[in-house]
Amino acid sequence: MSEPGKLVGVSLGPGDPGLMTRNAWEALSSPAHWTYPVTGISASSYALDIVRRGGLAIPADATPLVFPMSRDRVVLASAWVKAAHSVLALLHLGQDVLFLVEGDASTYATFEHLARTVRSLDPAIAVEVIAGVSSYCAAAARVGMPLAEQDDMFAVIPANYGIEIIDHLLDEFDTLVLLKVKPMLEQILDLLERRDIIGHARFVEKVGTPVERAIHDVTTLRGQEVAYLSLMLVHNPLRVSGGPRER
Amino acid sequence: MSEPGKLVGVSLGPGDPGLMTRNAWEALSSPAHWTYPVTGISASSYALDIVRRGGLAIPADATPLVFPMSRDRVVLASAWVKAAHSVLALLHLGQDVLFLVEGDASTYATFEHLARTVRSLDPAIAVEVIAGVSSYCAAAARVGMPLAEQDDMFAVIPANYGIEIIDHLLDEFDTLVLLKVKPMLEQILDLLERRDIIGHARFVEKVGTPVERAIHDVTTLRGQEVAYLSLMLVHNPLRVSGGPRER
Repeated sequence: MSEPGKLVGVSLGPGDPGLMTRNAWEALSSPAHWTYPVTGISASSYALDIVRRGGLAIPADATPLVFPMSRDRVVLASAWVKAAHSVLALLHLGQDVLFLVEGDASTYATFEHLARTVRSLDPAIAVEVIAGVSSYCAAAARVGMPLAEQDDMFAVIPANYGIEIIDHLLDEFDTLVLLKVKPMLEQILDLLERRDIIGHARFVEKVGTPVERAIHDVTTLRGQEVAYLSLMLVHNPLRVSGGPRER
Repeated sequence: MSEPGKLVGVSLGPGDPGLMTRNAWEALSSPAHWTYPVTGISASSYALDIVRRGGLAIPADATPLVFPMSRDRVVLASAWVKAAHSVLALLHLGQDVLFLVEGDASTYATFEHLARTVRSLDPAIAVEVIAGVSSYCAAAARVGMPLAEQDDMFAVIPANYGIEIIDHLLDEFDTLVLLKVKPMLEQILDLLERRDIIGHARFVEKVGTPVERAIHDVTTLRGQEVAYLSLMLVHNPLRVSGGPRER
């Protein structure tokens, strides 16, 4: 039997095919087998769309792996095991297997779950990750608002932690990246107005894609529908808590 | 007089030329004028070194801009003004000007200072940023430790904020990225041992360069010299504070 192939998490960046790294491009141009996540068997793939817009041909045997949008741990675990078995079958043929992910594979990506499950089934499998541009770095570049200067601190949190935690963290950080703001949008706008820092917030939706929206005056978002893949960058010029030592 | 050129912050990623984006590569292959930061007139350039290892020829007229390693605001402001005037002279010739930065231009980079100073001297100058892979995303990929899964929160802080703040933030975050750990290393190791999470920390120095060091057992760092460009990823499986809503 041949040596098993290696499993490679390929970060594609957040949406603009020009933000794919050279390493990602090279991996996709290799003979390795492609796999990519979908939320259902007939769902479209955001990752594949980035590659397609980049002008790369999708191999006919590229394999979708289903990861349902669910918070049910049994449903999720069973999907990972099924996906891991599909991947293992390919690896055991001696093929390298790419798993395509949007953004950066170490940041809120499904790759870690897949890699962990594959290795639990066969600890001999080698795993690699090709790092990528994260959505919030691309958003910061897009709106010209740095995430951090000199001695700043910043934090990245899913907005569903709730308004109290966002409020509290604004005391401690120079910049907050709030992910998945959709269900929390009005409450976040209220908070930013109450703290008088709404002029220091920016909103970016589907950054780098043809349907990107970058909003500098976030008060215009009141009453609007926003996409699931949307984020806010909030700079807090009034941070109160302690500064760095040895200034 | 011709239209002024635009100023472009070109993120090069943290050190591996393969982590340059396709947009960065394309910009560097254009006829635009290159500028890059150095700490002194005869100092070497980390940014230029990445490009050189990538196999791109450095244009003979590539211009170093001096940003001294100083915390003196007057010294820094005067360096930015001088650099901005050099850049403006080129822009006013109608040339596009690239400013090459390692890592991501929105994250602890000198680009924002330069862009702000240039625009304060001539508000008509168009500024663009090409986002890049940040050092901590590359480090996470290198050691196979995700920054965030599903509903995690993470924070990025310069380690010189002090041990008390790091200790406090470990209560609140799933993962901390500690930058510039060099002067704080022994104290950080003490803290991680005291909290019994030292097995969940990883150390990476000069990620993606030929002299990269990635350390999985950080206790081996005791008594060692480490580089200025070094960071730690600390995962805290024992986070105590509140979780996200709507789980």
